Amino acid sequence: MAMASLRVTLRNLGSTRRSLQTRIFPSAVRSIATSLSPPSRAVVYEQHGPPDQVTRVIELAPVEIKENDVCVKMLASPINPSDINRIEGVYPVRPPVPAIGGYEGVGEVHALGSAVSNLAVGDWVIPSPPSSGLWQTYVVKEQSVWHKINKDVPMEYAATITVNPLTAMLMLEDFVKLNSGDTIVQNGATSIVGQCIIQLAKVHGIKSINIIRDRVGSEEVKEKLKRLGANEVYTESQLEVKNVKNLLGDLPEPALGFNCIGGNAASLVLRFLRQRGTMVTYGGMSKKPITVSTSSFIFKDLALRGFWLQKWMSTERANECRPMIDYLLSLVQSGKLKYEMELAPFHDFSLALDKALGKLGSHPKQVIKF
Amino acid sequence: MAMASLRVTLRNLGSTRRSLQTRIFPSAVRSIATSLSPPSRAVVYEQHGPPDQVTRVIELAPVEIKENDVCVKMLASPINPSDINRIEGVYPVRPPVPAIGGYEGVGEVHALGSAVSNLAVGDWVIPSPPSSGLWQTYVVKEQSVWHKINKDVPMEYAATITVNPLTAMLMLEDFVKLNSGDTIVQNGATSIVGQCIIQLAKVHGIKSINIIRDRVGSEEVKEKLKRLGANEVYTESQLEVKNVKNLLGDLPEPALGFNCIGGNAASLVLRFLRQRGTMVTYGGMSKKPITVSTSSFIFKDLALRGFWLQKWMSTERANECRPMIDYLLSLVQSGKLKYEMELAPFHDFSLALDKALGKLGSHPKQVIKF
Repeated sequence: MAMASLRVTLRNLGSTRRSLQTRIFPSAVRSIATSLSPPSRAVVYEQHGPPDQVTRVIELAPVEIKENDVCVKMLASPINPSDINRIEGVYPVRPPVPAIGGYEGVGEVHALGSAVSNLAVGDWVIPSPPSSGLWQTYVVKEQSVWHKINKDVPMEYAATITVNPLTAMLMLEDFVKLNSGDTIVQNGATSIVGQCIIQLAKVHGIKSINIIRDRVGSEEVKEKLKRLGANEVYTESQLEVKNVKNLLGDLPEPALGFNCIGGNAASLVLRFLRQRGTMVTYGGMSKKPITVSTSSFIFKDLALRGFWLQKWMSTERANECRPMIDYLLSLVQSGKLKYEMELAPFHDFSLALDKALGKLGSHPKQVIKF
Repeated sequence: MAMASLRVTLRNLGSTRRSLQTRIFPSAVRSIATSLSPPSRAVVYEQHGPPDQVTRVIELAPVEIKENDVCVKMLASPINPSDINRIEGVYPVRPPVPAIGGYEGVGEVHALGSAVSNLAVGDWVIPSPPSSGLWQTYVVKEQSVWHKINKDVPMEYAATITVNPLTAMLMLEDFVKLNSGDTIVQNGATSIVGQCIIQLAKVHGIKSINIIRDRVGSEEVKEKLKRLGANEVYTESQLEVKNVKNLLGDLPEPALGFNCIGGNAASLVLRFLRQRGTMVTYGGMSKKPITVSTSSFIFKDLALRGFWLQKWMSTERANECRPMIDYLLSLVQSGKLKYEMELAPFHDFSLALDKALGKLGSHPKQVIKF
């Protein structure tokens, strides 16, 4: 799409996105600007719909760097499923269109507003809590948005440390008080959150029972998860037994379970849980609902809850997220937290997007490298 | 069944029910007895199965009243669904067979063990927490089992004040902190627990939205529930609308819901709940499971829990139940808590049981009058 037609559309939509408008109509601010960002190449969408149809990479004009602003040259930003849902318009909270994609990532400080003293050019920073509009080469946001991190981890980990690993950490901490030696159970164990749960549990002496879908190569997947620290890994079909608890062996019955699949995979988590256990749902990859027997609630006294990081980030606890991020990055640095990603050059964005959309078979998480 | 065959069966089963065995083999204890109860007519079952097939009314021999025992002449005891499930053998916690039916009721003190000083002959008492084996004319249990109550309520209320009204009270108190002006939503609103919830909510200034099944005479049912204090009553079919919240009018969105039905009726409760609301399941009359969307957990942040009075009674909080019972009886006495029951003479027990089993159409709760 040419710039001209985008401008017309934006004008017609009466956009409220100040920063994006500012960049498209730079003449309005140029007269009062004291310092300007470089032009920025950005992944923009003006309406909701299939991401491979509604997104375009365009160049945005320089914007003013105000006294409390920081201009960050983006290094890397992932394509998360929630980014896709925001573009599709099916996510409950999303920026108004037209918008720039992306919600987490890492960048290097490029220029500082005159009143910013706690950061220096060259520092690595992430928006924390996460913040929208990161799929572009230069991002200008207020200094309070940015959290300086150590440079001793690969940029793709810095870019992805919040949405998945922090979710795993908060779900392990916020629902049930676990002690060393306790057990958790989860489905979708091969997801990045699932892999983080295995590794974070292990760091705290907590055992994990992991459920994966039946697939070609499931033995290799099991071995991989066990190398990460999984105590047990079962395919769904292996759990078609009368009493899954007979499989526990020496492991205590789990007090906490995680579900990101729904349907039968959620029921399997429930079957493993002990009396008074809690299952936390954070995803629904099968698109099937969760079905629970009455007796699970009355006689087994199970509790079913949900977790959504974006909601958590809107609570007063959000200011606890920076030390947690630092802790998670320290685990990455010491080799205790790892997961597979694929770095994709920004000029190949549409290929990376197709991979993230599953159009080209199975691929690791796509992380755009700017 | 003749006594002779029952004795043989009991011997063969090696029963551990001391009190029942004692009564069937009285010669073993007669020599050490200092004081004896009268003989007792009791509803006994030696094996689990359909209650109308496995229960028999037989006369049990007198038993010793030990120094800390109280012999109570039973006045009234209800046939609750859980009593039926215990006899059927499908209840998770139940007395070993052979057993005497009944789990709550009221009686009059008939005789005291030599060390009992806190009760007098003629006092009304209920077992609190509830206790099994009450469907008989004379019950002997330790003094600590019995809670003295005022005689100023009808015996059928004293007999039924624990299993249903206390459940309603605890569910209103234990899950969500409600304030005057808040709203709750429930299905199965015509059940006794449902009617108690309406009335207890009203006493505390809490509004109730009530869901009933479609039936002939639903307008009369609605009027009856509104006279008890229900703010809104809907049949399930009335709620086949796009957004049930449009029906709320001035009522705040409910933070707490109760489900005793399952299936669609449970989904309707979930639809009414506000963000972060809690649904408590305490029954499953439709025998259908509860089905919940993934987004209800993640984006709406609903919590699903269960309540079981018998479990609550096994916790340390059980010693709070006596003041709660007194409070509930005071509400009965002042006309603020009422529900329909039918007193059935003990000699018509099998007719009352058939009514309780639903074999004779719809009847109010059956309360045996001894």
